[in-house]
Parts: sequence; C-alpha cells; structure tokens
Amino acid sequence: MSSPTPSGPTLRVAMIGHAFMGAAHSQAWRNAHRFFDLPLTPVMQVVVGRDAGRAAHAAERFGWAESATDWRAVLERDDVDLVDICTPGNTHHEIALAALAAGKHVLCEKPLANSVTEAEEMTEAAEAAGARGVFAMCGFTYRRVPALTLARQLVGEGRLGTIRQVRAQYLQDWLSDPDAPLTWRMDKALAGSGALGDIGAHLIDATQWITGQSITGVSALLETFVTSRPVAGEASGLGGSGDASAERGPVDVDDAAWFTARFDGGAVGQFEATRFALGRKNAIRIEVNGTDGSLAFDFEDMNVLHFFDGTKPVREQGFTRVYVTEPDHPYVGSWWPAGHGLGYEHGFVHQVVDLTRDLAAREQPRPSFADALAVQRVLDAVERSAADRSTWTGV
Amino acid sequence: MSSPTPSGPTLRVAMIGHAFMGAAHSQAWRNAHRFFDLPLTPVMQVVVGRDAGRAAHAAERFGWAESATDWRAVLERDDVDLVDICTPGNTHHEIALAALAAGKHVLCEKPLANSVTEAEEMTEAAEAAGARGVFAMCGFTYRRVPALTLARQLVGEGRLGTIRQVRAQYLQDWLSDPDAPLTWRMDKALAGSGALGDIGAHLIDATQWITGQSITGVSALLETFVTSRPVAGEASGLGGSGDASAERGPVDVDDAAWFTARFDGGAVGQFEATRFALGRKNAIRIEVNGTDGSLAFDFEDMNVLHFFDGTKPVREQGFTRVYVTEPDHPYVGSWWPAGHGLGYEHGFVHQVVDLTRDLAAREQPRPSFADALAVQRVLDAVERSAADRSTWTGV
Amino acid sequence: MSSPTPSGPTLRVAMIGHAFMGAAHSQAWRNAHRFFDLPLTPVMQVVVGRDAGRAAHAAERFGWAESATDWRAVLERDDVDLVDICTPGNTHHEIALAALAAGKHVLCEKPLANSVTEAEEMTEAAEAAGARGVFAMCGFTYRRVPALTLARQLVGEGRLGTIRQVRAQYLQDWLSDPDAPLTWRMDKALAGSGALGDIGAHLIDATQWITGQSITGVSALLETFVTSRPVAGEASGLGGSGDASAERGPVDVDDAAWFTARFDGGAVGQFEATRFALGRKNAIRIEVNGTDGSLAFDFEDMNVLHFFDGTKPVREQGFTRVYVTEPDHPYVGSWWPAGHGLGYEHGFVHQVVDLTRDLAAREQPRPSFADALAVQRVLDAVERSAADRSTWTGV
Amino acid sequence: MSSPTPSGPTLRVAMIGHAFMGAAHSQAWRNAHRFFDLPLTPVMQVVVGRDAGRAAHAAERFGWAESATDWRAVLERDDVDLVDICTPGNTHHEIALAALAAGKHVLCEKPLANSVTEAEEMTEAAEAAGARGVFAMCGFTYRRVPALTLARQLVGEGRLGTIRQVRAQYLQDWLSDPDAPLTWRMDKALAGSGALGDIGAHLIDATQWITGQSITGVSALLETFVTSRPVAGEASGLGGSGDASAERGPVDVDDAAWFTARFDGGAVGQFEATRFALGRKNAIRIEVNGTDGSLAFDFEDMNVLHFFDGTKPVREQGFTRVYVTEPDHPYVGSWWPAGHGLGYEHGFVHQVVDLTRDLAAREQPRPSFADALAVQRVLDAVERSAADRSTWTGV
Repeated sequence: MSSPTPSGPTLRVAMIGHAFMGAAHSQAWRNAHRFFDLPLTPVMQVVVGRDAGRAAHAAERFGWAESATDWRAVLERDDVDLVDICTPGNTHHEIALAALAAGKHVLCEKPLANSVTEAEEMTEAAEAAGARGVFAMCGFTYRRVPALTLARQLVGEGRLGTIRQVRAQYLQDWLSDPDAPLTWRMDKALAGSGALGDIGAHLIDATQWITGQSITGVSALLETFVTSRPVAGEASGLGGSGDASAERGPVDVDDAAWFTARFDGGAVGQFEATRFALGRKNAIRIEVNGTDGSLAFDFEDMNVLHFFDGTKPVREQGFTRVYVTEPDHPYVGSWWPAGHGLGYEHGFVHQVVDLTRDLAAREQPRPSFADALAVQRVLDAVERSAADRSTWTGV
Repeated sequence: MSSPTPSGPTLRVAMIGHAFMGAAHSQAWRNAHRFFDLPLTPVMQVVVGRDAGRAAHAAERFGWAESATDWRAVLERDDVDLVDICTPGNTHHEIALAALAAGKHVLCEKPLANSVTEAEEMTEAAEAAGARGVFAMCGFTYRRVPALTLARQLVGEGRLGTIRQVRAQYLQDWLSDPDAPLTWRMDKALAGSGALGDIGAHLIDATQWITGQSITGVSALLETFVTSRPVAGEASGLGGSGDASAERGPVDVDDAAWFTARFDGGAVGQFEATRFALGRKNAIRIEVNGTDGSLAFDFEDMNVLHFFDGTKPVREQGFTRVYVTEPDHPYVGSWWPAGHGLGYEHGFVHQVVDLTRDLAAREQPRPSFADALAVQRVLDAVERSAADRSTWTGV
Repeated sequence: MSSPTPSGPTLRVAMIGHAFMGAAHSQAWRNAHRFFDLPLTPVMQVVVGRDAGRAAHAAERFGWAESATDWRAVLERDDVDLVDICTPGNTHHEIALAALAAGKHVLCEKPLANSVTEAEEMTEAAEAAGARGVFAMCGFTYRRVPALTLARQLVGEGRLGTIRQVRAQYLQDWLSDPDAPLTWRMDKALAGSGALGDIGAHLIDATQWITGQSITGVSALLETFVTSRPVAGEASGLGGSGDASAERGPVDVDDAAWFTARFDGGAVGQFEATRFALGRKNAIRIEVNGTDGSLAFDFEDMNVLHFFDGTKPVREQGFTRVYVTEPDHPYVGSWWPAGHGLGYEHGFVHQVVDLTRDLAAREQPRPSFADALAVQRVLDAVERSAADRSTWTGV
Repeated sequence: MSSPTPSGPTLRVAMIGHAFMGAAHSQAWRNAHRFFDLPLTPVMQVVVGRDAGRAAHAAERFGWAESATDWRAVLERDDVDLVDICTPGNTHHEIALAALAAGKHVLCEKPLANSVTEAEEMTEAAEAAGARGVFAMCGFTYRRVPALTLARQLVGEGRLGTIRQVRAQYLQDWLSDPDAPLTWRMDKALAGSGALGDIGAHLIDATQWITGQSITGVSALLETFVTSRPVAGEASGLGGSGDASAERGPVDVDDAAWFTARFDGGAVGQFEATRFALGRKNAIRIEVNGTDGSLAFDFEDMNVLHFFDGTKPVREQGFTRVYVTEPDHPYVGSWWPAGHGLGYEHGFVHQVVDLTRDLAAREQPRPSFADALAVQRVLDAVERSAADRSTWTGV
C-alpha cells in the first residue's frame, strides 16, 4: 500500500524491539491518525531488532519503512524524532539515556528500569532533556483504557469524596502450568522481577494515578510456586506448553506478589499480582471506596466501569454499569457509534494521541519518567519488605 | 508513512461510501495483513464518494491512495480487483450488478438490497459471475466475532444436540429521544426498512448461520413509536441531539420489529430489533437451547460466550463463561496474548481475512449473495405478516 | 413445640392441597408474624388432602393443627376464617365458589381457573362476597418479590416516563429431557394449559401490574416439543428422571408459548414461557423500557433490580444494580440487616402480610379475582391466536 | 398457633440473647424440621434476655414457649438439652463453661471468645464434655451456604488439584458514614475486635474449611478510619443514622483489617475485612486457585458458585456459573424445586439440621470449639502482627 506522504507536521519514529509490545505499539503508530486529529502524524521510520531477518520481517508485517539491527546507529539518524523502547527492562536504562542524549524524544515501556538507581538516573536525564524540549514518557497504557480514564475523572471531580480503600488485583494464569517454558520474563537479570514488575507495576501506577495519591509504605510477600521450568528452544515473551522431559532452568523471580500499602492521602490499599490465578486471563481488577462513592473495574470486561454514587437516595443506590462507549466518554467519540466496544490495543492508540499532542504543545507527556520512578520505588519497597519478613517498609 | 509496496499478490480495492461502514471497512483493509498471513495483500486503491472534497478527506483519513466521485468510472479501472459497497441499501443493486458485470469481485454491506426482487437479481448475477471466478459476498460481519464463530462451531459439532429454541434481540436506544434527527436510516426509500433491516437482519443471518437452519415462516409486528423527527442540516448515519423547534419530517420505517419464527430443523425462535430499548447500546443477544446444551451471547460483552453443557453431571452444570481470547479460539491467536480482548472493528478485519483466503482459493466466500437473499426473504415475510395482522406467513 | 396461643386477633386458615404450593404457603402462614407486625395472627387450623395419611403427614410436617380429607366439611367449620386453595387449576372454581358461599375469605393459587368462563363466575362471586366483607385474592406471589415491588414503585412514580417496550421471559428446563415423567401439569383437563398458564401467567400478571397497563391484543404461537412422556407411578408436581421403557402417555398442553402483545398505554411487549430452555432453571426475566428510564430483573438473581435512569448525565448512565436488601426497600426492613438476601419463599410470607393487613382493614386484597380474570383473558386470547395462525387477536 | 407436641425424640433448646443472631437462630429452630427429617425435633423452650419485657416480647415474636432473665437458672433446668449462645463475645466464655458443666450441649455464636486464652479454656472444657457425650459447636454458619458447601466438596474431591492461592474479602459499608452510631460492636471490651473478629473470622473459618488447610502465619494491618461516633440512646447490633450533634464516644476496634497468610498445605491467601467498602453490603468473596481448577463465590449472589475446571479443553474453559439450587446440591433438595433460590437465613436452618443429626449420632458436630479456637489463634496472630509493623507472625 502506498499511502500519500503526510502533508503536515510529522513525528518520525524508531522502535526498538518487536515482540508483543512492539506489535501493540506498531498498531498504535499505524492507526492513531486514522481516527484522531493529531498535530503530528506518526511516520513509522525504522524498527530495530537484534536479528536482521526477524527485524525485516517485523518491518514488513507491522508496516515500518525500514529495519535495522544497530540501535545506536539509529539514534544518530536525523530522520528520527522519537525512540520507542519495547525491549526487556534490563536494556531500558542504556537505550533511554542514549536516546535522550541524542536529542530524541523517548517512549519507554514499563517498568521503567530494573532498579531504582537506574530509574533515578533515567529520570534525571529526562528532566534535563525536558528543559531542552526533549521529552520522555513511560508506557503505562492502562491509563488510556477509557473506563479507567473515566475513573480518574470521577475521583478528580470529588465524586468519591475522600478515598479510604483501594483493592487492586492483576490476575493471570499463564504460568499455572509448571511445564510452561522458561522465558526472559522469569529471569531476574533481564526482567528485574516477575509478576511484581511485569503486572504489579500496572496496578501501582493505575491506583496512584486514579486516586491522585502516592504510596508511602508497604508490607509485602513474594512467592515462587514453580522454581524451575523447561528451557525452550527459543525465548518468547509469552507462555506455551513446554516439554516436561526437557532440561529445566531456574526461575529466580516471583510468581506472585501481595502487598498492603498506605497512600499519602490516608487510603489503605491491598494489592495482588499473580500469574497463577487459574482461570483469570488478564483480570486487572481495581476497586476504590471513598466516603461518597466507589468504583470497580475488571479488564476482562474492559469497556465497563462500575460507579456507586453514595449521594443518591438509598433506595436507588447500587453500582451503575457504565458502558464506556459513548461520545461523552474519554477517547471513545473518535471511534465507533455508542455501544461498539473497544479492545486491548486501543489504549496504545490513545497513548500515541496524548503523546503527540503533548509533544506538539511542548508539554511534558505523562506518565513521565518521574511518575514511573515513583512506581519503581514502590516495587523496591515491596521487595525490601518481602525480604524482611513483611515488615512495614517506607517507600 | 511510506510503507514498501507489497511484494506478493495483492487485492486492489475500491470502496464506495465512506461513512460509518466505510470507516470500519478501511480499518480492516488497512490492518488485516498486519496480523494475519493473507494470500492477497489488500491495496487501498481508491475511495468513492459523491462529494469530491469529503471523499478526498476520507482518502487521507482512512488511508486510501486516491479518491473519486464517479463510481461507474472506477468500475472500469484495470487496477481495481474488488468493489466494496458501503452505501445505503437503495444503491446496492445498481452498483453490485455493474461491478460484477465489470468483472470485479464485490463485497456488499447488508442488507443486500431493499427488496427481494433486487436481491434475487443480485444473487442471480453473483452466481453467474461466480461461474466465471468473480465472487460476491455480503457483509454480515458479526459472523466474525470470535465468540459467535465459536457458537457456530459448537452447534456444528453437535454439542447442543437438537436445537429447540432461539431467542435473539438486537437492542439499541439511539432513537429513544423523539428529537433525535431524521437521517436516511429512517427513510424507507433509501433504507428499505428501519430497525428490521438495519439490525434485525443481523439477527436473522446470525441465527440461521449458527444453527445451520433456515427460517420457514414468521408472525410479526412492526411499530413506529416516533412518526416525525427534526430534519437535520446534514444527513449523518448516526444519532445525535436534534433541535426540537426545527422542521420535522416523517419517519416511514419501523422503530422496532418483533417476530416469531419457525426454522426448518424444528426450532422456534423469537426475535426483536429495536432502537428504543433505553439503556441498551448495542446489545445483540442470542440464546440457543438444544437438547444437550445451550449458548448465550451479548455483544455488550463481546469477548464472552456462555456455554451450558447439559451432558455434564448436574452438580457441576451451569453456563460457562468462555472468555474467547485464547489461541485455541477462532481468529484470536493472531492478535494478542490470552485475555487481551478484541473490539467491534476486529470482525471487519476477520472478514477481510476470510474473503482474501476464499478469493485466493477461488472459492465462494460466505455469506454469499444467496445467503443474504435468504435473509431478505425473511425480512419480506416479516413485513408481509405485520401488514396482515401478524398472521403466520411463509418465507 | 407448644407456642402460646396468640393473644390478639387471629386469622384461622384451612389450606386445601399440600404439594409444592402447600409447602410454600405453610411456610408463609407459619412465619409471617415472626418478622412482621400483623393485625391478624395466622392460625394454621387444618390442612386438607385427598389421602388421609398423606394429609396427616403434611399437617405434622408443615405445622397444621389438624388434617382432613373432605374439603366441603371443612368449609362448614366455624373455626375457619380463610380457605387457601393450593390444588390444581381444575378444582379452583368449585372450591372457591363454595368457600365464598360459606362466608370464608379465599386465597386461590394461580392461574385462577382453567377457563375464562370459570374465572368470570369466580370473579362475580368474589365481587358479591366483597360487598359482604368476604374477600378473595389470587396468589401471584412474584408481586411480592421486593425487587419487583420496587420496579412497580419506580414506574408508578414516573421514573421511566412513558413505557414503550416490555420483554418478559419465564425460562425453565425441567421438561427438556423427553423422558421426564408425565404429571398433572401436562394434562390439559387438570392444568388448563402447559407453560402458558403455569408460568406465562406470572409474566402477564407481573407486567400488567408493574406497568399499570392492560394487554389489549396478542399474536401467539404454542408448541409441544415432546408429545408423549413416561407415565410415572405417582403424579408429582415437579420433574424427575423417567423410565424410558415405561408406558407413555400423551402430553396435550404446550411446552412453550410465545406471544407479542399491545398494552392499552401504548407499550408493546414480547413474551416467552418455556420449560425447555436448557440451563435456565427459574429465569423470570422482565425488562421495561420507557422514555426516561428502564428496568431489568432476573429471578435467578432475585435480590437485584437493574435500573437505568436516562435523566442522568450520559457519562454516568448505565444500569444500576440495586441490591434490594436495604431497610428502604419494600418488605426488606423486617428481615435481616442490609445485604443479607432473601429467597424464593419470602414472597409468600409477604403475601400473607399484605393479605392480613387488607383483611383487617376490610379492604380488597390484590391481586383480586378480577385482576386474575384479566390474566385469564390474555391466556385465552393467546390460545385463540395460536389456533388461528397467530393472527392478531383482541383480549 | 397450637401445633401438636412432637411425638418423637426432641431437643429442648434455651437460647441466650435475642438480637440479630437470636432472630436468625429462632428462625432455624422453628423451621428446620418443616423441611428436613431430623432425628431430634427442636423444642423452643425458653429465651433468655437481660430485660424481662424485651425477653417476653422476643419469646412471643420468635416463638419460644417462655422467656427468662437469669441464664444461670435456666442452665439448671431439666427440660433444657442445649444452650444456644447468641450474646456478644465477652460473655461466651462464662456461659459456655457453665452450660457444659451443667451437662448441656452448647451452640455458641462466633467468634468463640474475645481472647485465645478464653477460647483455649472453652475448647478444653468442650473436649472434656465431649468425652461425656455433651457436645459443643461454634456457629460459623456460612459453612452451610450450599454454594460454599459445594466448594468444599469440590476441593475435597481433588477437583482443584493443589491449592496455591486464596483471596477472601468480606466487604460491608454500614460504618462508612462517620455518624453511624456507636454500638457494642465498636467496643473492644465487649466485641473483642472490630471487623476482624466480626466478619474476618468468617473468612478464616471458611477458607480453612474449604481448603482443608490451616493458616500458619500472617502479616497484617488494622485501621480505624473513624475514631469516635455518636453515642446512641440504646445499643443496637446494627447501623443506623446517627445524630451528628450528639455526644461521641471512642471507637477502639478496627474498622478494617487486611492480612496475608500462609496455609500449611502451601497456599498463600490474602484477606480483607471491612465495614467501609461503600456500596458493598455483605460481599463475602472467596476465590480459590488450584493447579487444576478454581472457585469463586460472592455472598451477594449467594446461590451461585463459579467453578473453573482446568482439565477441560481450553476452547471450552471458563468459570461455570453453577446455580446451586438443584436436588443434587447440598441441602437444596429439601427445599424448593430447582431454580428457586435460598436466602441468608437458610444457612442457620442447615446448621440445626447438621447439629441435631450429629447429636443424635453422638458425634462431634463441626465446627467444634477446637475449630473455632484455630480461628481465634489466627485472629490473635493478626493483631500481634499489626501491632508489630506487620512483621510476619506465626499462628
């Protein structure tokens, strides 16, 4: 397909990594301007991967103009405005610092880094770059699920009153099978942590963002249910049925994480992140109880937000199933008529929408690296508490 | 964005009409080969609209290489392999016949036509063309919602036993407000009928397809609750808030349709299509009860199929909420990891997948015009019964 | 257990019949004054059955002071104030007329009778008796499910605006097995009709009562899926697994009934009553759509009413799950703290509450026989329409 | 009502306390033999309360033959076989010890006591009495909700494989209003603790019972959101709207409790008990994930158990909504036909059923005092951990 070259201002993107997140980001870069009026039209300039053949295939499959294998060389290109980092967490620090140093905007997948120290250095670099008009953002895309955006709006408008309780669970089951193969996500050196950083990080960001409060302390427990797994022939980012007779390698990350947290606004939260909740596939469940209202969300029914308005007459009170598909709802009006729900990938499209608008306005896109560092600090406190008999640990 | 020209075989598409359906079809043509291995890569050659400026804007927005205003001229082009008809029902007959005569494959939105006679002529033409390797298909895309595809599979495998009952409702509410503006969808000359043909047609096709049975007779009632509406300045395909003081024009189609039907396999079905079910936005609800099992679906939770297996021990029986997002489910494996749901538009992508595969295999894509004619005949029987005091009327 | 004799005014009850309905009524007579302040304390005087031994056992099991076999003799007793008729429909007419003639109040299970003629005579007798302070009531107990009572209140307060659509389904599956045994409920001479009168009657009463509108005409279809069944050794009111090799007898009632109806207030309703909806056990589903609001109910989640308030801002609209267990809700405050749900039998308790209050106030309890006659007339119109090719038929 | 005196063996009951729990227990004693075949027919001999007038009223209202004010005197009566303790937790120890010493069976409401020491003494006394054929039981009635009984059965049969995770929440909101009045339930001297012992205790018992595993250690947090409340004129067991200008007294118990726990079978559980989850009325939510299956329950839909069978083909997997109202389900067959759900109080009836059967068989009814002591020890560990910065604490 040879679409005409965009006539207006563009944002030329280089994406590094092309697995699951790369596919999702590509879908967003390719489609955002088809539904939203963007001040900068994304141009999918180049995708970078370690293996030339696979990178070329990704370029063709996902619609990138070119592919490359040397990300450092790509950073030097004049025809790249933004670097989109979709690689495992252990590489974020190096790539992001280099990209910012090269004057490129950065979109970095979460978790921001594999340690607080790395995240701090990245944040420092991002803030320095921001002063020069070069911006960095972290990809907590669930902020852009319309139902969760609506949740934040309602809290921000005071509809819940004072927040007292938060419960947040991210339940998956793709490691429930003890013979599911070992991948980089179970290797601490690459992934930093297990369920905690991979999916628990989303809960931390989402609840801090929705409530507008920061977590100040935690008590935590981590558990590895299955301590070795079959070594697969080829690493893949996602599960699959392993071969029980195969060589097994060690799992050195958490399979599940639990923690209780206090927020600086007085709320108490309870968190769980697990890949062992058999039957739950991508159940991100967030409930918030305030003095005046409550909210409940489950990603397995992602177009719905349940809102309890405690100021209504008791006789009519109840959780209202808001089917977040109306033009009045965030992001939704640019898509389909009311009632025609969105899917997982739309959050990535919305991320591109917000990012390009902020870049065009020369405003800091959110979540910033500082926001992501705040998440990293909570992850760190969780690990410290878990290592210290769950003792209460400040963030 | 300047993607490389596809290297392999292509399917060069001309799309006529660029409103709601045009946007959905464009999204499908643009993305299908990004997730699925297609034997023919779609090339978005030209979009056709009555107004040159709006057509040009649609081309840029949706990613078509060119725009045009004369659909007849487009049919003569050598660089077009398929004509995708996304215009109101009154134009389908003329365009489809011309396109087939010009040797172009045709994808035609539903309902196939505004009368049985038209549909019969179109079917005859399609069958003649098919003999020459030129194929026509009708766009009942809900067949490609993975949960409904799974429903058909389960029925086809005998998991429900003998089908006894069907209940099917398509509930919307965008006309509930009596001051919602008049559009072409409320004009019988353009739309053929109201809720019946627009959304009831989907129920007819889906239930016949899922059950593998054909409707043989009906008893029906049609009702127009709001007989005049404000004339909007500009026709649009979808609702919106009207101006109560404005000039009003007549509504001459049904606002809601109800009918009871017998299927040729012995099942009895009850149907309702309405745009007045306040609070229901796009609730396509289909339940099927057999001697061994049952199924239930609601588009407002479109990634889920509820399956009751009556052969299990009674103690464990119940409707199983199958979250249709596993690699084992139809279409889903090409998208995201398990649990990351799809949205409305993905059905259109799947339609392109199936269509290109059939065309490459030189097989008749389904639903064929004959399938769509069968729907048209039911619509016609419904109208005849409703006009004859609901008396039982053969299809 | 020897409770003290009630000190205040009493209502001395004779109950005729002691199967399923007899058990439910007994539970109500025995418990209503334990939770509610009643002006008349029920005294369970005598239960009547055809077989002396089984009647005696019922008396002991259900807590009746005595048992008897001759209902005519019981009607003559001075120590009986009310006759509670829990027998099959073919006996209602004779017993109710005799009881009213004997000066006893009457509570008669639904459907009121097996024909309109009978129901008319009963209504006439009831109205004549009412003039003498002797009252008759029909037992459509679903009116006393708190969620449905709340539904009527909301409609009555205008919260739904003008009612436009009603959909009502009563789905069971206990006859889905073709070898479920033949009982009196499948014998037209005893039961009058099948699913139609047994469970469809509830839908008719409930929707007329909730909407405050009367059905004026119908188009209907009846179907008997299984035309013969094993003859069980002993008739029982409910299903069970039959013996396929046993002698089979004919089923001469409907297994399922479907009809479309117009209400005198302009609403259109669609109804289904079936014992063949595999997987649905007692799913009484009622939805009402008005111009300003909508309601939805399913007896399988009987403590919940879903209310859509269309006057709220669109962004917050949705069906509110009202968990009808608050002191502010009808009947509920006399039971348990908020959130501790009720069950099936509580509707019968509430029936006793309302009935004794009306009797003490010398007011006509509702539903009156006239209300039940109105249901009977709709049932009759349904049967006539079904016998006349579904042609529209006035009530 | 003067029912005949039971002819067979009886169980003569004295009940102490007649508030919320007294009402529920009375309902059970009064009705159990109306639906179930009991080896011992309960005789409601005497109800005991501190105030003579209120006790007499309770006797009449609930159906007890007599009332009394001196529980010690009642223990001496020869015509009492069992003492049913429905008073606040601070009195359980004294009454239970005295009753057992007097040779009476004991049914004691939960939590067993206000301290581990008391509970240990009670357990010791109960075990000694048991050796003499005098039995004691603790009233964790949620074990008798049919859906939870089914849950235990499925786990016991190995259908879940090895249990890995438990999540348990008991969410209420009746104290969310800071002006809800102070009652004995917020007074540590009377209630022992707040949400923890009142509702958290149910979660501990239910999860230990369902999984068949014991909790070995915890990390916990307690919080009192509202530290003073209006002093009501009269203590009542349940909420209500207070008078903001009234005198306020201190709340010295927890409003909410959170803890993480390890079970001796290797499972990890996360628990929350709160009276501040605005919009949740009596949401007892229990999920259990094993290697082969999972279960989910919510008391707000108490007739339903969701069961995920991981051994089925992936394509058909999902949580099956088992509507626990079939004759095949525990307890249910003695009530109504399939699909006619039960309510809160039925668990108390089932408790009487099981208790009388065990007593007649001279077997230890469960949960025994030892079972309840195990709960008490967990409660104690929770309090110790919470007082020690959430540090992991052995039970």
